[in-house]
Parts: sequence; structure tokens; C-alpha cells
Amino acid sequence: MGYRFSDLTAACQDDWRAHIEHDFVRGLAEGTLEEGAFRHYLKQDYLFLIHFARAYALAAYKSRTLDDLRQAHEGLKAIVDLELGLHVGYCRDWGISEADLAELPEARATMAYTRYVLDTGNRGDLLDLHVALAPCLVGYGEIADWINARPGTVRGDANPFEAWIAMYESEEFQAARRAEEAWLDARLKDVTPARFAELTQVFRDATRLEIDFWQMGLDRAD
Amino acid sequence: MGYRFSDLTAACQDDWRAHIEHDFVRGLAEGTLEEGAFRHYLKQDYLFLIHFARAYALAAYKSRTLDDLRQAHEGLKAIVDLELGLHVGYCRDWGISEADLAELPEARATMAYTRYVLDTGNRGDLLDLHVALAPCLVGYGEIADWINARPGTVRGDANPFEAWIAMYESEEFQAARRAEEAWLDARLKDVTPARFAELTQVFRDATRLEIDFWQMGLDRAD
Amino acid sequence: MGYRFSDLTAACQDDWRAHIEHDFVRGLAEGTLEEGAFRHYLKQDYLFLIHFARAYALAAYKSRTLDDLRQAHEGLKAIVDLELGLHVGYCRDWGISEADLAELPEARATMAYTRYVLDTGNRGDLLDLHVALAPCLVGYGEIADWINARPGTVRGDANPFEAWIAMYESEEFQAARRAEEAWLDARLKDVTPARFAELTQVFRDATRLEIDFWQMGLDRAD
Amino acid sequence: MGYRFSDLTAACQDDWRAHIEHDFVRGLAEGTLEEGAFRHYLKQDYLFLIHFARAYALAAYKSRTLDDLRQAHEGLKAIVDLELGLHVGYCRDWGISEADLAELPEARATMAYTRYVLDTGNRGDLLDLHVALAPCLVGYGEIADWINARPGTVRGDANPFEAWIAMYESEEFQAARRAEEAWLDARLKDVTPARFAELTQVFRDATRLEIDFWQMGLDRAD
Repeated sequence: MGYRFSDLTAACQDDWRAHIEHDFVRGLAEGTLEEGAFRHYLKQDYLFLIHFARAYALAAYKSRTLDDLRQAHEGLKAIVDLELGLHVGYCRDWGISEADLAELPEARATMAYTRYVLDTGNRGDLLDLHVALAPCLVGYGEIADWINARPGTVRGDANPFEAWIAMYESEEFQAARRAEEAWLDARLKDVTPARFAELTQVFRDATRLEIDFWQMGLDRAD
Repeated sequence: MGYRFSDLTAACQDDWRAHIEHDFVRGLAEGTLEEGAFRHYLKQDYLFLIHFARAYALAAYKSRTLDDLRQAHEGLKAIVDLELGLHVGYCRDWGISEADLAELPEARATMAYTRYVLDTGNRGDLLDLHVALAPCLVGYGEIADWINARPGTVRGDANPFEAWIAMYESEEFQAARRAEEAWLDARLKDVTPARFAELTQVFRDATRLEIDFWQMGLDRAD
Repeated sequence: MGYRFSDLTAACQDDWRAHIEHDFVRGLAEGTLEEGAFRHYLKQDYLFLIHFARAYALAAYKSRTLDDLRQAHEGLKAIVDLELGLHVGYCRDWGISEADLAELPEARATMAYTRYVLDTGNRGDLLDLHVALAPCLVGYGEIADWINARPGTVRGDANPFEAWIAMYESEEFQAARRAEEAWLDARLKDVTPARFAELTQVFRDATRLEIDFWQMGLDRAD
Repeated sequence: MGYRFSDLTAACQDDWRAHIEHDFVRGLAEGTLEEGAFRHYLKQDYLFLIHFARAYALAAYKSRTLDDLRQAHEGLKAIVDLELGLHVGYCRDWGISEADLAELPEARATMAYTRYVLDTGNRGDLLDLHVALAPCLVGYGEIADWINARPGTVRGDANPFEAWIAMYESEEFQAARRAEEAWLDARLKDVTPARFAELTQVFRDATRLEIDFWQMGLDRAD
């Protein structure tokens, strides 16, 4: 007993590093990612966000305490009232119109990760759902850290993906990430080894599906 | 085909009238309801609200369009960010502390209606869920109209329940009620008679469970 | 840690005894229950069974291991392939036709307990669902024991409810009950006190809703 | 109005043909598929079956009529009581032990299709769930027909995949397929064009995820 979130990443270290340090992420850090790959990713990330809103809604439905309900609602509200709008604006900067977004076919990698998260939430409890979401919320925060710690990273106007990096290193995003880690730490400390093994499998699966999501961008896969 | 919301109330007119014109509602209108009954209702209505937040969260999860997701989120946000706070304040005015609310055992009538709504949503589709919610959202709007149309109604300082009536006759609440009716009308117009029969059963069951909720107040039942 | 199923009954002893020793149950034991009350109960119990089949189906959906999936399927199969047929036959013996059963309106107490179980399962995990089911499966087994241990109990042809008692004291039913207790014991031994408190609330609520189900029979309530 | 199942395949004809006539299927028909690819497919198909059992369980949970509940239960029972055992035996013939199956990591393509089906069922209604399942149940039946109608197909001892083909052309499987098509036809005849468009998207997505499942076999992808 006495697990923490960092035990999950330690338990599937290879997959976790493959997510954080994916070639797509390196391309973002160095400003060398092909723009077509980024556009493909951006479009799918819009659909991804909508299903993540559904995941926070599911978390609100499953909540047993008012605190958990409020926290889940904050996640949903952030997406619906803020992030979807920012994403639409950001897509516009990259030449993707709102009409393009509305008619977008959903890529397999988008379906795979989002539906895995949602089924995991319905099958298990609120902790399963949070663990399935963690490679995204906590992972993107760690990716921003990793990008900033790398010698090869290019920041500022020289990097076309500067705004993307800035978003995930922002204090607002990092605060949400820390809150999520704290929530997970508080619950993981009481789980049994058998339960931790179940959660590790969820976390590993979700991390592998995040890796596929980056790869889909590189491959412009549909 | 070509059904509307009003066909649902027409299809179970006796139960609908028993809900709208319940003795508890008459007591509110005339200011004659026993205060203990009102306090009992107010406390359970707090738990009811929390499960209604879960129902709107479920509606957000089940949404297939961004419009439906946003609408469900507005319902959830209204409860979490506004109504729960108003309710806590209103309870305080009636001598019920937030600590009382936090430790409240849930009455059977509260469990019955709220869980019926939630299971109906999980079992069926978004329309089933909305129909199960309608006796509350649309019903309370119609109750405000009915109270105001009655000769025996007492308004103003002479009625200890003035604030309650005022809330449900407010333009804000009535706009939400009209929006819900419009949403239901738009979907009911395309359903088959067999589907309308299913929805009528949901609506009748939910209406009967609303009647029980009023009765629980009168009986101070736990 | 180290909880067992018997800790759940101990934690809400008053409610548990009120369920096991309900006047309806006493009437069954002594053969003095009014037949109209029994018929009312039998009819609602048919609808109850259908929703319990849905609960076992939900348990199958939520299962994480093949063993849990198989066990949930056995519960579902027992109801669909066996118990519903037995129930229809038993109802016929009491003058209730299959056509009566098909058109039966669902009583509030039936909706309340069944939907509480189903929502508890969707909201939480497989253990929550089993705990919500336990007052029925384990409770009926304990009721058979209690009936047989009472001096006032009448058995055989002198008791019109002999077949009902015989079913729940049968080795087949008692084996299912013991298996359920063993399943619960195996999982409860690892839960934290906070988790046990959550499960106690589920168990107490479900027990209270079982009490209401008996009372509905006595009251012939709809 | 007046849609049928064949309108779904017609609406996404290219994807449907890509599923039915996939190179993996051609390799099965001609007996030329590499055995390693078949083994990879067989192993993942075992995990697939478990999640399909969960999908039938979800269909049972969502059923509104006893007929639908019984039908869903038959699907679940066929998998749990029969097909899983046959699959384990068949895997053994191909050198895959039950221990191998128990420790199998789940491939992305398996997660993608199965979780898409399950979330579609939770998000929508019973018809959504059936439409998401159709590319498997109905598709495999049509694949058996297509294999048998091709000149290049090899049957009997000369084809190492003879038993696989025989299973899906069997009267038992084809009867289940016809029953599913009849169920879908009966429901599709009443849907509006807007609803048919939604269902077409579900059917197309599910078909694309079936294509990926074949491709995973060819690629021995994890």
C-alpha cells in the first residue's frame, strides 16, 4: 500500500517515455514537425476534446461527493466554455475552419483512446476513469516540462508551435495537472496491490493509446 | 407522428394534475403549508438537486452533438454553480444549516425519483432522459403558472413561501422551461406511436414519483 | 481492514432486522398473511425479477475478470431461463395470468429499489452493485433461516405460503446465497474504513428499500 | 423512412467491401494466410469475444422488453457457455495454450473496436448498440457467403483454415445472423432520415474498426 501517481509511470516506464518523448513531441519542441502532421493532429484533437468533455461529464455522473462532482464539473466547464473555443481559434490560425472541424471524420486513433477512457469509466469506478485520463492531463504537463528541459528545444517566434508549448506550460494548465496528481495520490495511497495492478493495466493501455494518437499525427492516418 | 410535449401531459392527465395541484403545492400557494413539512421538503430537495446535477452530467455524456452537449452542460452548471448555493442560502433562512444538509439521510421518495431518472437515461437514449426530467423542470414551471392563476393564492409578505413561488415564476426559470419544452417538441414530432407509448410510460412513472416527493414532504417521511 | 459481509448487517442492525422480521415475513411464516397482500407482492416481484436480470447483466458488463463475468452470467441465466418461468407458474397457481403480469403497472416501491440498485452499479464499481443486491439475495436466504428457527412458524399444507418458504430454504438457493456472501467477504476484507462507510450507506439504503417492498405488499400500494 | 439493414451497407459500400473482402479474408479463403498472422488474430479474437460478451450484457441491461432481454441473453450465453470454450479449444489446435490467452496483452485494434461498440451502447440506445455490433455478427456471415462464392476459394483438408470457414457458414451461425438482420430491419423501417444518418455513422465507424482488426492480424500488430 501507499502508492502514488509516480508508481503508475514507474510501472510502465517504457511506454510512458515513448509517450512523453514521442517523435511528434520532439518535432514540436524543435519546431521541425511537418505542418501537415500538426494540422492533422490539431483537427483530431478537436474531436478528442469533445469526447474528453463527455469523460468529465461521466466523472460528474459517477461522483459520490459534492467535491468530486464540482471537480468533474470544472473539467467539463473548462472544455466546453473555454478550450473548445480556444481550439477553434487556434485551428483557424492554422487554416482550419470551423466548418472543416464540424465535418471531420474521426480517425481510428481518436476513437480508440477516447472510447477506451469512456468504457473504462463505465466499467469501473471514478478512480479507473481518472487513471485512464491521466496520460492526457498529467502527460501533457510533463511533456511541457520535458520540452523545456531539453537542450534542443526552440522557443519563441522561431518555433511555429510556440503557442502550443506555451499553453501546456502555462500556470493554469500546470495547476490543473498538479491538482489531478494530488487527487490521484490521495486515492492511490489506500489501494491494495491487486487493485494497483488493475489500475496499472488501465494506465498502460491509455498511455499506449496516447502514443498512437501522436503517431496518427505523424502518419496523417485516418 | 407529429407529437408534442403537451401530448405527454394529455396522455396521463390524471397523474399530471395530481402533480401540479398537489396539496403540498396548494399549501405553498395559500401560505398554509406547515413549516415542518416545508423544511422536510427543502432538505430532501437539496439531495434531489445533487442527483439532478448527475442527470445533466449523464445527458452531457450521452450527447451526440455539440449543441446537446452544451445544453446539458448549461443545466449542470446552473445547478452546481448557482442553484446549490441558492438552495443552501434558502435553507439557512429556514433554519437548516449546511452541516445539517451534509449529514442528511436520503428519503425513499428522493431515491425513487432520482434513481428512476438516472436509470432511464442509462437504459435508453437522451430523449428518454429528458422525458424523465420533464415532470420536474417543466412541471415546476407549470406549477408556478397554476399558483398564479388560482384565486386563493396569497403572494407577498403574507405568504412565507413567497420566495419559493418567485423563483419558479422568474423569467430565468421560465425561459429554461420553455427551452426544454421546445427541445422536447422538436424530438417528439418524429417519434412513432410505439416510441411515444414508451415515452409516455416514462413520463407517467416520473410524474407519479414527483407526486410521491410532494407527499413525502406532507408526511415528513424518511 | 478485514471487513466481512456480517459487518454490513451489524452496521445497520435495526434496518436489517426490520427487513428480515418484517410483518409481511411473519405473515408468510405463520400462514396468516392476507392472500391479497401476497398476490400484490407476487405481481410486483415479477417486475422486480426483470430488473434484477438487468442488474446481473450490468454486473456482467462491468466484470473485469472472466470469473466475474461467468458468475454474473449465471445470475442472469438463472433468472431468464429458470426463475421467470417458475414465477409465472407460481403466479398462475395464485390466479394471476401471464397476461395480467404483462400489463402490470410498476409500483413505486418496485421502481425505488430496482433503480437504486441499477444506478448504484453504474455510479460505482462491481462491489457497489453486489452490495446493493445483497439485501435481496442474502436477505431472502436469512429470512428462510429465521422463519425456520421461529416457534410460531407453520410448515406444510397448513401454510398456503409453503412453496414460497421451500424455495428460499432450498439447497440451490442457499448455495447461491453462500456463494454471494463468500464473494463479498473476499472483497470486503481489503477495503479501507472510508470505503466500508460508503458501502454501508449503500447497504443500508438498499435494506430500507427492501423493507418498503414488503410494506408495499401489506399496503397493496401501487 | 422504410430503411433496412441493407441500406446501411449500401451507405458505406466502400468500407463494407473493404471489410468483407479484406486481404486477411482472401488469405483465409485460399488457405494462403501466414499462420503467424492467423495465430495473432486468433489470440486477439479471444479478447474480442470477452468484450462482445460485455456488449451483449449491456444490451440485456438496456432492454425494455422481455423479448429483447431474452435475445440479448441468448447472445451472451452463446459466448460464455459455448464460444469461449470452442475458441480455447481451437486456439489449442493452433498451439496457443489457455495460459497464453490469460496473459495476452490487448492489441490497439481490439481495444478500438470493442470500446467503440460499448461506448456507443452506453451513449445511445439499444439500436445504436446493435448497429455497432452488426459489422461483426452480420459481417462474418456475409464473409462466409463471399468466401464460398469465390472461384479461388479452397475448401477441405487443403485449407488449414477450413474449420474457421465452416464455423461461420454453419447453419447455427447463419441463423443468428439472419435473426440479427431481421431485428435490425424491424427497427430501421421506422427511423427518420436524421436518425438513419446517425446510425450510418456508427455503422461506418464500426466497419472501419473491423477492417483494422483484420489488418492487425496481417501486421501482427500489438
